[in-house]
Amino acid sequence: MKHNSFKNDYSFAAHPKILEALAKFGAEENIPYGLDRHSENATRLIKETFGAKDAKVFFLAGGTQTNLVFISSVLRHYEGVISPTSGHINVHETAAVEGSGYKVITVNGKDGKLSAESVNQTVRLFTDEHMVKPRMVYISNSTEIGTIYHKQELTELYKACKDNGLYLFMDGARLGSALTSFDNDIDPKDLGSLCDAFYVGGTKNGLLFGEALVIVNPELAKDFRFHIKNKGAMLAKGYVVGIQFEEAFREGLYFELAKRTNLYAVKVREALTKHGYPLLPSSTNQVFAKLDKKRAEALIKEFGLEKWEEGQDYIVVRFVTSFKTEDNDIESLDLYLSQI
Amino acid sequence: MKHNSFKNDYSFAAHPKILEALAKFGAEENIPYGLDRHSENATRLIKETFGAKDAKVFFLAGGTQTNLVFISSVLRHYEGVISPTSGHINVHETAAVEGSGYKVITVNGKDGKLSAESVNQTVRLFTDEHMVKPRMVYISNSTEIGTIYHKQELTELYKACKDNGLYLFMDGARLGSALTSFDNDIDPKDLGSLCDAFYVGGTKNGLLFGEALVIVNPELAKDFRFHIKNKGAMLAKGYVVGIQFEEAFREGLYFELAKRTNLYAVKVREALTKHGYPLLPSSTNQVFAKLDKKRAEALIKEFGLEKWEEGQDYIVVRFVTSFKTEDNDIESLDLYLSQI
Amino acid sequence: MKHNSFKNDYSFAAHPKILEALAKFGAEENIPYGLDRHSENATRLIKETFGAKDAKVFFLAGGTQTNLVFISSVLRHYEGVISPTSGHINVHETAAVEGSGYKVITVNGKDGKLSAESVNQTVRLFTDEHMVKPRMVYISNSTEIGTIYHKQELTELYKACKDNGLYLFMDGARLGSALTSFDNDIDPKDLGSLCDAFYVGGTKNGLLFGEALVIVNPELAKDFRFHIKNKGAMLAKGYVVGIQFEEAFREGLYFELAKRTNLYAVKVREALTKHGYPLLPSSTNQVFAKLDKKRAEALIKEFGLEKWEEGQDYIVVRFVTSFKTEDNDIESLDLYLSQI
Amino acid sequence: MKHNSFKNDYSFAAHPKILEALAKFGAEENIPYGLDRHSENATRLIKETFGAKDAKVFFLAGGTQTNLVFISSVLRHYEGVISPTSGHINVHETAAVEGSGYKVITVNGKDGKLSAESVNQTVRLFTDEHMVKPRMVYISNSTEIGTIYHKQELTELYKACKDNGLYLFMDGARLGSALTSFDNDIDPKDLGSLCDAFYVGGTKNGLLFGEALVIVNPELAKDFRFHIKNKGAMLAKGYVVGIQFEEAFREGLYFELAKRTNLYAVKVREALTKHGYPLLPSSTNQVFAKLDKKRAEALIKEFGLEKWEEGQDYIVVRFVTSFKTEDNDIESLDLYLSQI
Repeated sequence: MKHNSFKNDYSFAAHPKILEALAKFGAEENIPYGLDRHSENATRLIKETFGAKDAKVFFLAGGTQTNLVFISSVLRHYEGVISPTSGHINVHETAAVEGSGYKVITVNGKDGKLSAESVNQTVRLFTDEHMVKPRMVYISNSTEIGTIYHKQELTELYKACKDNGLYLFMDGARLGSALTSFDNDIDPKDLGSLCDAFYVGGTKNGLLFGEALVIVNPELAKDFRFHIKNKGAMLAKGYVVGIQFEEAFREGLYFELAKRTNLYAVKVREALTKHGYPLLPSSTNQVFAKLDKKRAEALIKEFGLEKWEEGQDYIVVRFVTSFKTEDNDIESLDLYLSQI
Repeated sequence: MKHNSFKNDYSFAAHPKILEALAKFGAEENIPYGLDRHSENATRLIKETFGAKDAKVFFLAGGTQTNLVFISSVLRHYEGVISPTSGHINVHETAAVEGSGYKVITVNGKDGKLSAESVNQTVRLFTDEHMVKPRMVYISNSTEIGTIYHKQELTELYKACKDNGLYLFMDGARLGSALTSFDNDIDPKDLGSLCDAFYVGGTKNGLLFGEALVIVNPELAKDFRFHIKNKGAMLAKGYVVGIQFEEAFREGLYFELAKRTNLYAVKVREALTKHGYPLLPSSTNQVFAKLDKKRAEALIKEFGLEKWEEGQDYIVVRFVTSFKTEDNDIESLDLYLSQI
Repeated sequence: MKHNSFKNDYSFAAHPKILEALAKFGAEENIPYGLDRHSENATRLIKETFGAKDAKVFFLAGGTQTNLVFISSVLRHYEGVISPTSGHINVHETAAVEGSGYKVITVNGKDGKLSAESVNQTVRLFTDEHMVKPRMVYISNSTEIGTIYHKQELTELYKACKDNGLYLFMDGARLGSALTSFDNDIDPKDLGSLCDAFYVGGTKNGLLFGEALVIVNPELAKDFRFHIKNKGAMLAKGYVVGIQFEEAFREGLYFELAKRTNLYAVKVREALTKHGYPLLPSSTNQVFAKLDKKRAEALIKEFGLEKWEEGQDYIVVRFVTSFKTEDNDIESLDLYLSQI
Repeated sequence: MKHNSFKNDYSFAAHPKILEALAKFGAEENIPYGLDRHSENATRLIKETFGAKDAKVFFLAGGTQTNLVFISSVLRHYEGVISPTSGHINVHETAAVEGSGYKVITVNGKDGKLSAESVNQTVRLFTDEHMVKPRMVYISNSTEIGTIYHKQELTELYKACKDNGLYLFMDGARLGSALTSFDNDIDPKDLGSLCDAFYVGGTKNGLLFGEALVIVNPELAKDFRFHIKNKGAMLAKGYVVGIQFEEAFREGLYFELAKRTNLYAVKVREALTKHGYPLLPSSTNQVFAKLDKKRAEALIKEFGLEKWEEGQDYIVVRFVTSFKTEDNDIESLDLYLSQI
């Protein structure tokens, strides 16, 4: 049976509505460098959605770029950013943060997350000018392993940051999936008061490309357009991203796509469970299952999965659903599982 | 009369054929990070077009980013890049090159260009380890003021670079316009043997966004994908750029659009000349005219022009034609010029 | 009883012979920037001493500077340096390496050391261009906790480096102490074939200041004087360091001072053991003892010790002997221990 | 006749009084990292001398390092420092400032100096976020060509900086020579109110090495010790520099040496003038004379001069006097001039 893979959530260009908006508004003359009316609308919609009325919003091209641009803007070179050891900036960004001149201070999190307590403990290790000075905490929501922060956790973490003079930054490459998870209890409207900055990922949720960086804390947005340009991250046709986010938040498309994607992840979980394969904790559009090597390799081949972890006699594989996942893909999976 | 502005060549999103290709191929599953078949096709087409069969081609998001990524990959921090004082990296990139840790060594060019002789002279000024070590020459074609390099000039310049152990890098943000200029004598097929690297600008020639960096000199491409990621410049949906360049070079759309744009620039020149306004030298899609202040201000307002230079009693304004310029825009300009 | 502290090995300016050499040769006219005959002599002596006849030797001001200068010269920004978690570059250099743009990849060592096996394992974790590329291994000898590498360990580690395309760099801030330890089995003459580069620490072994960086691998020394100047690390009066190292290696003063310092450390160990305090493993001029809190605090106050670790009911304190330690200091310690 | 060269002012290690102070106080136990009582005393003396009672003073190893450390501490990467084209940071520091990530904006000064007017004009060229943002002005006193700032010039320049939101930083590698010049009208006590920061050069005025960075503007000193360490510029034996500056300012040795050095420069000028060689403007310890090539080459050989500029039929040579220059050296020069 022909089907899409479960390889990742960025193998299809964009949702048709996004492309239609681009065709429609891109045919008109727009002001360049993100100063156009679509970026303005998208900014307004995002600020409303996330309860961040005084925030500044900047549209960038990709996730690693957004992390690099924001972190390098906030820190001085003797300061560091605390991250879970599993954090994207620590593992999968080819040292983009360190390459820009900033130390990532790693902490072994639990389920890919940092707790208030671990931040409090970490800060105490750095005592004088011979050591890096912690200045920011980086987290991802959803995390790199598909888990999410609950409101209580995030509230406490943010308080710990404030207590210790740290900024809290949330990588939202998969923010849509986090906030529409069955397990989520954070109202998007509260996010603006639970961190200093976050970004709303577009690339992994149906946009052609683009991330919206929301800087809630006004002291962190000073001269930010200078900074973006200095990092080579300012798009001449900034409105191309603005138009997409305008469309994504105009009538709720962003959360609609994320929700749908999560629902298919639930179906993947059901299929795997039904066939007896244990799952790792995760409540978003990434699903991790532990299988014997033979079955894992077969699934990897058939569904383009990523091999996440390999042990003596098992493999953990990752399934990712996307805005393009369809009933047919689930049926194919179910059928395949019943045959191997 | 309603008309488009002559503000710049990046105020309209993309040519319809580009959007169609995106819609068509983007609906299929693609391998991420630029390893897809469209990027592969585009690479092959570009290598053929520019006579660079051993080149490596990398697709990036924007011009400043491409300059930053390439220059920072080649240089060590004690080395510098020679640029005309008017070069984009020196003037209009918010110190992106220096911000990454590399000195731009400026030379007063002629007509926005560097000559072999000026490179030879410049290199002799740097004598020992207490001074920056020149290692690269940066030029733009077309230049920031719309002029172009002739084959003889480029040949000599490249020879001067090789004589002095320098790499030659050409910023091709407006390469299409340069190579289709009425004054151009460089066959695209020769470009691959006239420099160490260049880029083919998409953003300013009808693509949604994207630049194709062509590294001709193989020693400069080592580990380049690591480097791109490290600079935050690797797109997850790399195929989005690959699809566009594939379409641009599949049947000649790239040069077709550039040629058409240049023709309209010729018409702008004719209109200005007819009405008695002196032009600065330029043979591509940027046209610079010198006017008295009153008329200049009126034109700026009506046609969204950039004020390029201002003297005691004159203003130099810049007209830019684009893939969207139409006969109607020229007629509007002509009419307006006859009335002021 | 009046006595020196055991705080560290850099609280006294310099051994009298060093100051005499400075007074004598510094009164003559010298060529600046390290091109003088004393630096030349010192270079020759160091190359002979360490069996590194093709090495290049560069004199720098301090240890953190030497690490920063060497590591930043070798790596590209997408590459990383593997270090024990306890490594000086990771803990006590205020992110100097990351601040220059290079990731430190930490590995939990044993006794402050890295093994060949841990390097082999670590390298396997980094699989593609989305992750930092390991390119160097950093170790200290003696380590930050006073242990040393044995010849077998170092030989295997260097082999693991070569097998994996890594450079091996040894921080020798306390190299003298390591190579004159009672437990050492490395002949200084062998060091030149057991790593790609190392430095010979002067600051912590009786010199006024200064470290001698020995680059054994010729491909790593290219343009190095440009690089030193670029990092602000070239001394106009380079001969001031050259004179000191010439004196240190002219008649064996360097190892003589280190040996004497180690002998006093042995006496510190004896005193502590005699009074029943357990020691952590260490065989150089740093001695770590575990005491109950009351006695630890008393010792810290009386002998200016550093508190190394603190538990529920114990403190680990660090004693450091130096070229200035005398019998009297040991007697004072012994007496004090007998009274608390 | 045997004589010292006029090559530069850093070919002799240190004035005997400096070495004596080092021997004396260095034999006592000192607190490391610049927190010792000698550094404290030196700080107090420097603040008094330069009328900078609220300043923070930091002792560093060399001039390029001091420029690099201070400039990189103040600027963000999208900001630039305005410098005369002839400024040391632009010409003779191997791109140390750009290598750290900051653009040097060059302005053609007059006599090696920047005027208030040129700063006002320069700032107006930088209009938006696509251009580097000027944030600091760098000057040297004395300049690289031996000229000095008069009080009126400096007052106006500082005002221009304040008017434009710029910090003013004075490179004082040869500050002693500037402030004791026959042409100087700046009272050292006024310096603390005429700029935001400056440094007091030790290396070129009789110290073994070391520069005292005086940060007058308190907002620029935040976390500065972290920053110094991060740049590899913190000396473990910081007191070695502190002791020297304490001695230099305890009883006026610093200005005494500079004054004496200037007097010998006057004698060099007299000898050159007497023999008919034209001088370039300069009023400190650097003397520039224009000679025919034959005589210039002879002088260069005999007195180790630097060739400063070479024309068709002339050479400009540089004479530098130092704390070691003696009557005998002047007599030798006079005699030699009378014979060639």
